[in-house]
Amino acid sequence: MNKYPTAPESDVVVSCRVRLARNYSDIPFAAKMEDAHAKETVSRAVKSIQNANMLSMYRLFPMNEMSETERKILVEKHLVSLDLISNKVHGAAIISTGETVSIMVNEEDHLRIQGFLPGLQLEKAAQLAFHADDVLSKNAPIAFDSKWGYLTACPTNAGTGLRASALVHLPAITIMKKMGAVIQAFGKIGFTVRGLYGEGTEAEGNLYQLSNQTAMGRSEEDVIRSLIDACEQVAEQEREARKNLIEHDQDAFIDKMMRSVGILLNARLLDEKEFMRLMSDVRLAAGVGIINAPISAIDELITKMQPASLSSLAEAPLNARDLMLLRASEVRLSLSTLIKDNDTFISEEIK
Amino acid sequence: MNKYPTAPESDVVVSCRVRLARNYSDIPFAAKMEDAHAKETVSRAVKSIQNANMLSMYRLFPMNEMSETERKILVEKHLVSLDLISNKVHGAAIISTGETVSIMVNEEDHLRIQGFLPGLQLEKAAQLAFHADDVLSKNAPIAFDSKWGYLTACPTNAGTGLRASALVHLPAITIMKKMGAVIQAFGKIGFTVRGLYGEGTEAEGNLYQLSNQTAMGRSEEDVIRSLIDACEQVAEQEREARKNLIEHDQDAFIDKMMRSVGILLNARLLDEKEFMRLMSDVRLAAGVGIINAPISAIDELITKMQPASLSSLAEAPLNARDLMLLRASEVRLSLSTLIKDNDTFISEEIK
Repeated sequence: MNKYPTAPESDVVVSCRVRLARNYSDIPFAAKMEDAHAKETVSRAVKSIQNANMLSMYRLFPMNEMSETERKILVEKHLVSLDLISNKVHGAAIISTGETVSIMVNEEDHLRIQGFLPGLQLEKAAQLAFHADDVLSKNAPIAFDSKWGYLTACPTNAGTGLRASALVHLPAITIMKKMGAVIQAFGKIGFTVRGLYGEGTEAEGNLYQLSNQTAMGRSEEDVIRSLIDACEQVAEQEREARKNLIEHDQDAFIDKMMRSVGILLNARLLDEKEFMRLMSDVRLAAGVGIINAPISAIDELITKMQPASLSSLAEAPLNARDLMLLRASEVRLSLSTLIKDNDTFISEEIK
Repeated sequence: MNKYPTAPESDVVVSCRVRLARNYSDIPFAAKMEDAHAKETVSRAVKSIQNANMLSMYRLFPMNEMSETERKILVEKHLVSLDLISNKVHGAAIISTGETVSIMVNEEDHLRIQGFLPGLQLEKAAQLAFHADDVLSKNAPIAFDSKWGYLTACPTNAGTGLRASALVHLPAITIMKKMGAVIQAFGKIGFTVRGLYGEGTEAEGNLYQLSNQTAMGRSEEDVIRSLIDACEQVAEQEREARKNLIEHDQDAFIDKMMRSVGILLNARLLDEKEFMRLMSDVRLAAGVGIINAPISAIDELITKMQPASLSSLAEAPLNARDLMLLRASEVRLSLSTLIKDNDTFISEEIK
């Protein structure tokens, strides 16, 4: 039903990521690292990229040279973890210009190599990560044990060192109170469901992260294949739930979605939680074809309106109230250009 | 602050009315009336208008020739009372083409002669009523006692037979929980506060009817002058309350108003109560200059969206759900053409 398929399954799957945990065998692991070691991991990673003649494709983000806002923007874009930005002295990120590869240096492991793509493109995201892994491992001693596989700071990551994850938008399953069953089903096949920014965070805007629980006992291909299958299944369940909601009471469904659109287009004060709740309706409305707006643009708007990204739009630091005002004014502007000819669209496509 | 002053004080005073109760002295009063009497009052009233060569300026609405919907539309336009339309056999209304004069025949009294105008124009409304009274009384014996004045079915109307009333929009006073004090103050000077459709009805949309309690002991001029003064005072209080609300938190105030606008412009289902609540915000927003829409058009929309008026738009009878759908769709259409260039307007006039 999506008129603008920007990425496969993007009506449900926002983005996907494959992350590889790697450590240099000749440098102590994080817990026993000294300053010189931490500096060495960063310079070694940069050198590997230089040796591969790929420096122009990447940009280095040393945490200690960035403001708190700049660091948080990387988290809001899902390019780095909260753990990385808490390592303000030695943490660094090496991010590709297209933001499809991000290498976190001195997070829990020496290297956390990540490949990202919008929608459900886990195999391609894996290729991105493995290609970067090849570059970083070339002529560098990586901690690997023939019995245990890749060695990592935390044993849950040992083995393949791989975590595959997908950010999925499940508003209809949530409305129908079926998230409990989904989480249980995912648990049975070795996957876990987390909030928007990973472990211990909330599922704001009905956005959930699916990822494998352990990195041992299953091959990389197997984990990625299983997550693709699971994502396709949950996407089908979500579409079925959306269809049921619409069939149950189409007018009430459209009414709810369009009221959220109306508030976003007119409010003068928007806090983060309300914004996420309303944008979830907008994303759902676009997903089922109630409004005529590209999903990729909606996802971009969601990211841009997070607190740090929003703050960066202003010249001066903003208090909570100023953020609410700025968010509302930016959303009015962006959303009104995004959404077009809705009445026409509804009458032709749905009614 | 109102950019489109369609009628005096119309930012607060929606409309005003002067009503005169009259009875023919040679026909039994309502309680003792027989069929022939009731027919005689109607034909006599029509004849008086004919004798004055004014038939082309009026239209006769006999209740027994109208559908329930048609009868209710007259109530929603405030042209006739609920009491009149409950007299389905003999009740009639004689209404001027401009809908500024409405003569109810066989309501509680033989004749209830009403003059209506938008905004606060009570003296002109009184002129309209007294002129119609002259026409109807010419060569007809009207029940009048030199001690008691005009005689009426209910003693509260005896004397002048005059009730002056004003429909006022008091959202800010209501929000600030000062309606109790206003009602008390009006009571002290002999005025009473009622809901939108008169006695025992609710003040939907923060709309209240102010009127004199008795018709004896005070001259017509005195009652009208007092109500004008009272309306001017309450209008000033309301404007002061609006100013206080805006000064207290302008962004929160505009936010609340514009959210209501946004919901009205986008909802697909609107029940009557919610519609009235949201339109009260729209009327307030227009009154203080937050939105650029003529108040007279807003008042017209409020009337047009009442259940019977709305039903008449459809070919077939509508159930409650259909009414909600039709109301939402009509409001989207009307309001979007009414409201223009809001952001610009706000930045120039208020901010």
